Parts: sequence; C-alpha cells; structure tokens
Amino acid sequence: MPAAPFSDDEKRGVYRAIHERRDVRGQFLGDAIPAEVLGRILNAAHHAPSVGFMQPWDFIVIQDAAVRRAVYENFDRANCRAAAVYDGEARKAYARMKLAGILDAPVNICITCDREREWGRGLGRQTDSATDLYSTVCAVQNLWLAARAEGLGVGWVSILDFEELKALLGIPAGHTPVAYLCVGYVSVFRERPDLEENGWQQRQHLASLLHFDGWANRDERRAAALLQGS
Amino acid sequence: MPAAPFSDDEKRGVYRAIHERRDVRGQFLGDAIPAEVLGRILNAAHHAPSVGFMQPWDFIVIQDAAVRRAVYENFDRANCRAAAVYDGEARKAYARMKLAGILDAPVNICITCDREREWGRGLGRQTDSATDLYSTVCAVQNLWLAARAEGLGVGWVSILDFEELKALLGIPAGHTPVAYLCVGYVSVFRERPDLEENGWQQRQHLASLLHFDGWANRDERRAAALLQGS
Repeated sequence: MPAAPFSDDEKRGVYRAIHERRDVRGQFLGDAIPAEVLGRILNAAHHAPSVGFMQPWDFIVIQDAAVRRAVYENFDRANCRAAAVYDGEARKAYARMKLAGILDAPVNICITCDREREWGRGLGRQTDSATDLYSTVCAVQNLWLAARAEGLGVGWVSILDFEELKALLGIPAGHTPVAYLCVGYVSVFRERPDLEENGWQQRQHLASLLHFDGWANRDERRAAALLQGS
Repeated sequence: MPAAPFSDDEKRGVYRAIHERRDVRGQFLGDAIPAEVLGRILNAAHHAPSVGFMQPWDFIVIQDAAVRRAVYENFDRANCRAAAVYDGEARKAYARMKLAGILDAPVNICITCDREREWGRGLGRQTDSATDLYSTVCAVQNLWLAARAEGLGVGWVSILDFEELKALLGIPAGHTPVAYLCVGYVSVFRERPDLEENGWQQRQHLASLLHFDGWANRDERRAAALLQGS
C-alpha cells in the first residue's frame, strides 16, 4: 500500500523539528532518558541515507561518569588552545560562552565512520571518497531531529582532540569519530541559536545564497519570490 | 513562550519522514514543484546546524534542460567508469540499476560548501577541518526530510566528475560541491531502499553497531533492551 500523504500535523512536526532544533550546550537537565526513547533516536540515525547503502556508522553510547569526565578534560584543553587564537573583545566573548554540556547531559553519543566497511560494495564512492563521512553526518542529523521531537536537546562538540578521543574510547584505526554528541532533556529550547543570541554571528539571508542554473546567475527577484512563503 | 511538546501526530511526522525517506532514482514524475514548496525545503536546509553558525552553504537550483542534460552526460561517463571496476554478476547487477534521475526530476539542486567563509569566525573548526563540510551535509538532510513531508522525492547523485561539474556550473575555487540532488514528485516511495530491494546490500542489525562507554564494550542484551521499542 503506498504511503499516505503527510497530514498537516505530521508536516508541521517535521518543520517544527527543523526550525526548533538547537545546538544545546547550557540547558541540560540531569533527568534519565528512557531506554525506548534512546532506542528510537538511535534507530532514526540508523535509517539515514548512506552511499551504496554502506551504513558506515557505529554508535558509542556513553553514560559512565568517569568516561565523560575524561572527555570533558580533553574538551577543556582543546578549548583553551582554541580560545588562544582570538584577541581582545572576541577572546572575551569566546570565554563567556559555554560550548559543551559533556558533564551535564546524562548521555553522550560518539558516532563514528568506518572508512573501510565493505558494505555497499563501493557503489557511489569512487567519485568522492568523502561520501561515507557524509552518510555518517546524515545519521547525526536524523538523530538530532528525532531527539527534538522527543523533547531532547543535542549538542555537537567539535572542540576535541580527536586522536586523544580515539585512544580514550578505544576506537580502532580506520574509523573516524565524526560527531561527539551530548544528549538530554533541557530546561528550554532557546528561540534562536546560542551564537546568534550571543551576537557571535548573525543568520545570513537565504536569498543571497541562491543561484539559478549556474553560479553566476543570481536573481534577487526570483529568489525573493521563491522564498515568499517560507 | 517556551515551545510546546510535540503532539503525537507531530512526532509521528518526524519519524515518518525519517523512515519513509528514500533515495529516489527511478520514480520521478515531471510535475512542476510550486515555488512556495521549493522555498520551504530550501529554507529547511538553511536552518541546519553549522559549526560556529558558519552557514557555509550555497544552493544552485537547476531547472534548465540544457544544464541538466550536460550534468547527465557527466554522470553517464562517470557511471561507465564506475561500472568497470565490477566483474561478473556484480557488473550485471550494477548495469541493471538506475542510479540517477537527473533528467526525469524537474529540479536539481547542487549544494556547495564555502571552505573559506569567514562567518562563524572559526569557532569549532580548529580541531576538525571537515566540520564545514559536515554542516553542509546537515543542510542536505534537512532538505531531504522536509521534501519527504511535502511528498517530494530526492535522489543524491554522487557518481559525477566533480571537477567537471564545478566547471560546468561555474562554481568558484574554494567551494566544494557536496551534494547534487534530483528533486521531484514521485509515483511511489518504495517500502525499502532500492539497493536493499535489488539485493545489492542488506540493512545491518543496529544492535551490532552499538557500543557502551567504549568501543570494546558490546553488550547484545543491553543493545536489544535499548532497541526493543524501535
């Protein structure tokens, strides 16, 4: 039986997840995540598209406090090094921001990509060797949106020494840690991204990022018409 | 006002989009996509997470038949080269599959990543230089799921000579084409991925991809308990 069209409510759910998703760093509650909820968001990740149906991902679910503490220390060192590249006001602004909820979130999930997995038999990968990493990112985004629908916040921590992280978690050679995620219920989903609220960076106008039939052909009137209802 | 929890219908919409999304190659109809629908899925892409709120993406919306024809020829040559690496039955199976709907889908969208965009001021990028590409993939997946909710199929074509594609579309140096997508209404969303239905590759058991607190700790009973409700 062919799938029915999405009802208005179902469609609204998809757009709500997309527009109300946040990269959460500071609003985690410690509340436990029920197993079936965690199972559903992992299963959502596993149903991401993948090149050649390669499914190159693995999921390390981290709840142990000592492991999260060690990852936090890794983050803290990497963050100090990262802060050092900024001067003056930018450095102060950087220092004021909370950039990870590793210890606050009850669950951390590291999503890795097996660069050598034979599943998929190489289909679609000959022309772009990064497509397995891209597939893994699709899994991250599926998990993120499913989590939002479940009322769970997710924060992606990219400020880590990834070689150290591999050693810490025992990730074998040939596997790349793509995303380190903090997952948990939150006190609030902020209306706008943290970095926008903090004044670190504004959102760009989508119309300025649209091109028609080729890069050189920008057409503001056409772009505005396209985006009128969005 | 804090956002309300997702209703059951809204939640179902998110999971339907995730589980009923397909990589469409062969079921495109030629029907035009209304401007407001195309605008909404592009806006969904633009609301993806991005490292440091960098928003490194651009969108080339391609409807011109001559441009799509030229891209199709690029694909066709790349696909012949790709087929040549398979022998015997695998080669026959490869040749039988339709791997792109470039000409059938009324709209193609190329999503690129600006590797040098200064937006975001480098936040989160010092430790992993691929995070801008990852952000762009999140935009792809947002677009894909929004499209599914709208009843639109999307197919990601990775079998292309990307240097030729850059030249064809006039994409400047420093910008990487991450995804070339075919977008259109479809006759049907297949129940399972094409490559699974064709017998090219089966879906892996998610339980076998779960690790707890570290790579070495696999626990089938715990994994099964976690996934029971999924």
